[in-house]
Amino acid sequence: MMNNTILSQVKFDEKGLVPAIVQDAASGEVVMFAWMNGEALSMTLETGRMHYYSRSRKKLWLKGEESGNFQELKEMRIDCDNDALLFRVEQKGGACHKGYRSCFFRALKGGDKSEFAITEKKIFNPDEVYKK
Amino acid sequence: MMNNTILSQVKFDEKGLVPAIVQDAASGEVVMFAWMNGEALSMTLETGRMHYYSRSRKKLWLKGEESGNFQELKEMRIDCDNDALLFRVEQKGGACHKGYRSCFFRALKGGDKSEFAITEKKIFNPDEVYKK
Repeated sequence: MMNNTILSQVKFDEKGLVPAIVQDAASGEVVMFAWMNGEALSMTLETGRMHYYSRSRKKLWLKGEESGNFQELKEMRIDCDNDALLFRVEQKGGACHKGYRSCFFRALKGGDKSEFAITEKKIFNPDEVYKK
Repeated sequence: MMNNTILSQVKFDEKGLVPAIVQDAASGEVVMFAWMNGEALSMTLETGRMHYYSRSRKKLWLKGEESGNFQELKEMRIDCDNDALLFRVEQKGGACHKGYRSCFFRALKGGDKSEFAITEKKIFNPDEVYKK
């Protein structure tokens, strides 16, 4: 499997995970941060769609499997220490399960350093998208 | 201390650390990925200069203390789960200790998925900047 040579270059941590930063390829906006195990990275490279490892659910997770908000892989980057990955993707809809384009929809700005303010607009209703 | 209200909103992991994604405020380029403990975050907010926790050296680390390549904090963001931080900074020189603007200077592109290629140009000589 051709991805083995890539997998062997990535330094996974003691839990077998590596941090994945996800950036909108067109705008440069950082839309998400998640974790990958070897299987998630391998599936991502094979399918061209972002897969992660859910630490809370303890399982492989295809981003968009429930919401339809898939992330198409455009470019993968690795950092100087081989222990962090940066993915540039085409993000369908919003990345955030709370209905925002980016999970980083709250910012600390200017003088008041005591609380985070929501700086983005919701682009979908999570109650409609994530049905149980 | 006013930063306590911010610190209390961040979910540090079992090691007392939180992932920090660092983005060039002007270009949107992701230049670095590092870890922070409470002290590093507090020092960052107090001084306006990025501080991290070095897991290998097990100590607080002011980015640029040796190289002069400081990162001035422009904006801090937090993700939906409160367990990842995104910083937009003004990066002096290069962020990478290998001489590049960004630590993510290698990419996997196009058809050949077997190796990472260097896609950026060195902007300083690390041997001159990091003296022992």
